[in-house]
Amino acid sequence: MDRANEPNPLPVNLSQKAKRTQEAPISALIAAAVADPNLISFAAGLVDPLTLPVDECAAITQKIFADRPRAQTALQYDTTLGLRPLRQQLLSHLEKLEGKPASSMSITADDIVLTTGSQQTLYLVGDCLIDPGDIVIAANPSYFVFTGTLQSLGAQVKTVPADEDGMDVEALGELLGQLERDGPLAKVKFIYTTSFFDNPTGLTLSLPRRKRMLEIVKQFSRDHRILILEDAAYRELRYDGEALPSIKSFDERNEFTILTQTFSKPFAPGLKLGYTVMPKALLEPVLHQKGNHDFGSANICQQIALEAMRDGSYSRHLELLKTEYRKKRDLMLASLQRHMPGEVHWTHPHGGLYIWLTFPQTIDTSRESPMFREALNHHVLYVPGDYSFQPDEGGRIPRNHLRLSFGQVGIEKIDEGIRGLASVVQSLLQSKGTSRQSPAAAEARR
Amino acid sequence: MDRANEPNPLPVNLSQKAKRTQEAPISALIAAAVADPNLISFAAGLVDPLTLPVDECAAITQKIFADRPRAQTALQYDTTLGLRPLRQQLLSHLEKLEGKPASSMSITADDIVLTTGSQQTLYLVGDCLIDPGDIVIAANPSYFVFTGTLQSLGAQVKTVPADEDGMDVEALGELLGQLERDGPLAKVKFIYTTSFFDNPTGLTLSLPRRKRMLEIVKQFSRDHRILILEDAAYRELRYDGEALPSIKSFDERNEFTILTQTFSKPFAPGLKLGYTVMPKALLEPVLHQKGNHDFGSANICQQIALEAMRDGSYSRHLELLKTEYRKKRDLMLASLQRHMPGEVHWTHPHGGLYIWLTFPQTIDTSRESPMFREALNHHVLYVPGDYSFQPDEGGRIPRNHLRLSFGQVGIEKIDEGIRGLASVVQSLLQSKGTSRQSPAAAEARR
Repeated sequence: MDRANEPNPLPVNLSQKAKRTQEAPISALIAAAVADPNLISFAAGLVDPLTLPVDECAAITQKIFADRPRAQTALQYDTTLGLRPLRQQLLSHLEKLEGKPASSMSITADDIVLTTGSQQTLYLVGDCLIDPGDIVIAANPSYFVFTGTLQSLGAQVKTVPADEDGMDVEALGELLGQLERDGPLAKVKFIYTTSFFDNPTGLTLSLPRRKRMLEIVKQFSRDHRILILEDAAYRELRYDGEALPSIKSFDERNEFTILTQTFSKPFAPGLKLGYTVMPKALLEPVLHQKGNHDFGSANICQQIALEAMRDGSYSRHLELLKTEYRKKRDLMLASLQRHMPGEVHWTHPHGGLYIWLTFPQTIDTSRESPMFREALNHHVLYVPGDYSFQPDEGGRIPRNHLRLSFGQVGIEKIDEGIRGLASVVQSLLQSKGTSRQSPAAAEARR
Repeated sequence: MDRANEPNPLPVNLSQKAKRTQEAPISALIAAAVADPNLISFAAGLVDPLTLPVDECAAITQKIFADRPRAQTALQYDTTLGLRPLRQQLLSHLEKLEGKPASSMSITADDIVLTTGSQQTLYLVGDCLIDPGDIVIAANPSYFVFTGTLQSLGAQVKTVPADEDGMDVEALGELLGQLERDGPLAKVKFIYTTSFFDNPTGLTLSLPRRKRMLEIVKQFSRDHRILILEDAAYRELRYDGEALPSIKSFDERNEFTILTQTFSKPFAPGLKLGYTVMPKALLEPVLHQKGNHDFGSANICQQIALEAMRDGSYSRHLELLKTEYRKKRDLMLASLQRHMPGEVHWTHPHGGLYIWLTFPQTIDTSRESPMFREALNHHVLYVPGDYSFQPDEGGRIPRNHLRLSFGQVGIEKIDEGIRGLASVVQSLLQSKGTSRQSPAAAEARR
């Protein structure tokens, strides 16, 4: 068949939402990482393949499938809300994490929904709350997959700055005050915060700011509730520092906060299982949407997660993960210290998978930059920082940051990768004539 | 804490879409079926627990987790499109089902996306194509979960009648012609058809109508493509009659048809895994949306499905399922024949899980009817037929049908359940003075 002579196919007329939706940049980065096992990937938030719970899941699946009625349950449909025994287990788990009884937060197992990763919760919450033109407030920078999702839903993402203590909640109060004075306060649907070991910065919202954020949303909830969507995906990957309660834990009547957590980071992404506690007035519409999406996430994954929590392998595996990731974080911080020029700064996270680097303004880290290309030539992949920023009033986005993940990369590759990246930075700074070499870098060049 | 004195919580301001979204009636029915194991449920399309592939999945998971690199893959993230070896396997599987090479349909493994059940595909396709006011055309009756989803997206669902040969495609052509004359042809985004062993009627679109439907959408695709969404969830559960190719198989350039299939019905719902072939112009936006939903469905389920196809347990299990479901279908048809009054008619499906009953107009089967209540008193649950209908121009919906599923119910319960249901129908007809008893029912009453 001679294709050249065929007419071009007619267009497919997409919905407005589909037209607003860009490919999440992370998909391309994950695809690159999955495709090329030789790359030193500091990019996608994949977890370390060597620390996946293979033996645990071997034992768990053997146990599940040896018990015929249970195996049948695992292979059958369940409810949209998810497997009840798992929701009960997760309620106890949350009680331990918060250090207080569920009743003091007015939650029961029926206020928890199981989703296809916590990402599905983020999507469903956005879809149930956002009409085009509505406002969501987030830190700048923020988790870019979700800000992209919000924009595909037609939301305006307004931002407040963040510092070492996380999102600047006083700036949040000022922004809300300004939105009230200017009129569109009614359009503010929720505040999005990655309150533990933030993606991309690795930083954590301080305890006083947690309480204050809740006060502020209550204060500005005039005719409708302004909610807090607390994304705690990295919460349990804590390597040092204090264990903080969630913002949700202060929301005594389960009215203002949505707390979402996941099995992907502390156990295994392959289960694609997240869980969320949210106010009843939101849970019902979320379930209706989820009914339309899938009537409930894969039951077999829920059974595996349940058994992992029951037989203790979840906790044991989490301790192992924390030990391994702590080593990798320490090594990455030490490598940065050893190799990076003095002009470069970075965060020192107490948990999670990310370190956030800040370069002099002259350095452009973006996908199209010589730096990105040169890093790839050194077999190093990072996430350009500009993905995580919303533009300021002048449309400007900082291009002098990047996100490094020590999640997926093998520990033996970290120093090599950081050295490669540092050498790229060093060359760029030298070509711009502004470098102050690190002691080690100066040494290496002598 | 004295709740009585607390102020009512402020409202949560939902999106327009959330406000349009009703609870899928099937969720409540599934929940009822899951909650009460004593009920004789002819309702939800659950599968028979006794025919779930427990031993197969025991062997498969043992194999996966004994192979460490493979286990690591199963527990890690993959791409949004899904596991490549599984997509390749599914391409061969489709070639066998269609009896022609993939190249003759212009499809490769990269035109297949793996989703959280085929339900997720239905949702994503709807979301990528529908703006409020757009038109989808379906048969009347149709699969009500999806027509509900379409309405939550703001679609107008227009209908054409169906008969023993499935959707009346000439009526489809007339409707499209009328929409063209009246103006809104540009709003028609796709035709939805469950082309194999339809939900709810159990009937199959005939071969001539398959070809004709494709011709018709091509004919009316003026400035944009009118697509066919071919939901083939029940395709492989064929008990007798001819194996038909899909509508998709005639779409030589992969331009006009979306074919979606699933592992839920022919293997196990607990994997929550579906797969879909669609035109590239739609696949890209669907993947962008899916990236926002979940970046890809649970990888462990994809690995299990892959192994089931590779080691032959998928085919072997399907043969077992067909044998068991065939018995149940035959028994249900025989029980209907034995117990139902002569005024009642039903379909005789060659596959799938459903039989569709039609009663005299005097019988109301709806959720609020005495019949539904009385059936529950006899421990029988069915799906009211009105769920599956769109109203006609006068807003009328037929209330004299119901859907029976022989999927979940134990074979030993079928006759008892049908007898109970028939006795309810008999009483209602007698109270209305219109009954002609079936021979067996007359016998039983002597």
